[in-house]
Amino acid sequence: MPRTFVFDAYGTLFDVHSVQRLCDGFWPGHGLALSQAWRAKQLEYTWLRSLMGRYVPFSRVTEDALLYACAVLKLNCGEKETGALMDEYRRLALYPEVSRALDKVEGKRAILTNGSPDMIDPLVAQSGLRFDAVLSVDSLGTYKPAPQVYQLAVDRLGVAREEIGFVSSNCWDALGAKSFGFQVWWINRTGAPVDGLGFQPDRTVKGLDEILR
Amino acid sequence: MPRTFVFDAYGTLFDVHSVQRLCDGFWPGHGLALSQAWRAKQLEYTWLRSLMGRYVPFSRVTEDALLYACAVLKLNCGEKETGALMDEYRRLALYPEVSRALDKVEGKRAILTNGSPDMIDPLVAQSGLRFDAVLSVDSLGTYKPAPQVYQLAVDRLGVAREEIGFVSSNCWDALGAKSFGFQVWWINRTGAPVDGLGFQPDRTVKGLDEILR
Repeated sequence: MPRTFVFDAYGTLFDVHSVQRLCDGFWPGHGLALSQAWRAKQLEYTWLRSLMGRYVPFSRVTEDALLYACAVLKLNCGEKETGALMDEYRRLALYPEVSRALDKVEGKRAILTNGSPDMIDPLVAQSGLRFDAVLSVDSLGTYKPAPQVYQLAVDRLGVAREEIGFVSSNCWDALGAKSFGFQVWWINRTGAPVDGLGFQPDRTVKGLDEILR
Repeated sequence: MPRTFVFDAYGTLFDVHSVQRLCDGFWPGHGLALSQAWRAKQLEYTWLRSLMGRYVPFSRVTEDALLYACAVLKLNCGEKETGALMDEYRRLALYPEVSRALDKVEGKRAILTNGSPDMIDPLVAQSGLRFDAVLSVDSLGTYKPAPQVYQLAVDRLGVAREEIGFVSSNCWDALGAKSFGFQVWWINRTGAPVDGLGFQPDRTVKGLDEILR
């Protein structure tokens, strides 16, 4: 087992679709569709802005993606709704097994996230989880799965890449980390196929609690 | 008006969803869902592989995306179906207004495409369209919207960026080109919102024939 575990945050520890409830409150019956469109566009914008060389922080990307998703779905999203939903992103629910599973991790544990400090710091603080480091791509100005993002963990944690266990439920992130040289666990909660990106995760599990058994 | 027009190929001149008919032939009732999932994953893989620094040609990306989309939709896709659908991608239908609209272009006209030569060359050849140049990202080893892709048109056509009119129906491609410095027409056939990537197209039109009026 690796001596250091590095976790993705959004979708892996925190359920990005826990915003659905508030979305449904504002636009009854549209919560699921909005949550899915919002998340898909959020990721797309991180990739596109990285390739364009036009980085902006994840909070800006997340708000831009929300406004786009609402426009596509023809939902009227004003300042009140935008503010409330962005706040909700700072208190996303943990997946149910996360707290117990993390308690069993021996050695260092860290987060490596697309989230800018204005989003990830309050989210982690209110979660009750504790980490040795919370590393954000914001200091690099590019998003996952660029190799320099995974290198950030090596540099800041002072651990060789092959000694790092990387955990993500985002398959493309898991494979980006594998391409870089981490030992990779893919949390496949939904039974999805593995992405065709030329790499395979070292292990595929259904939840965080399966990693440390 | 710019003296040189550069066109995106897939989705702009050629209708990527014309594969739907053959998809429906293999898996009745699933053609539309497969065509949409295939296209979405194809684009996603171009962005992810570019960021990972793991370029493979568009033909490989397109086949990988097809296999993923079939797996998600639980459609059994063997060698016969894969071969036939990849062949179909080499004879995609033109949008109805394209041939007439291109006949009116004065000055140079070129294609700038993600398509690798093994896909784009036969596609253009069978279309009956004629271009002064067909430029592929394949010589660069990265995909749109990286700025070096748009620079390729400047270098190979010998025209300053601000004198190039770039035409794409893919909003993110149009905005990548705008970020680079082209004059940009976005073909918005479906009435979609503009993407939130920090740029706006110079003009938005509903079809290629509107550009040259």
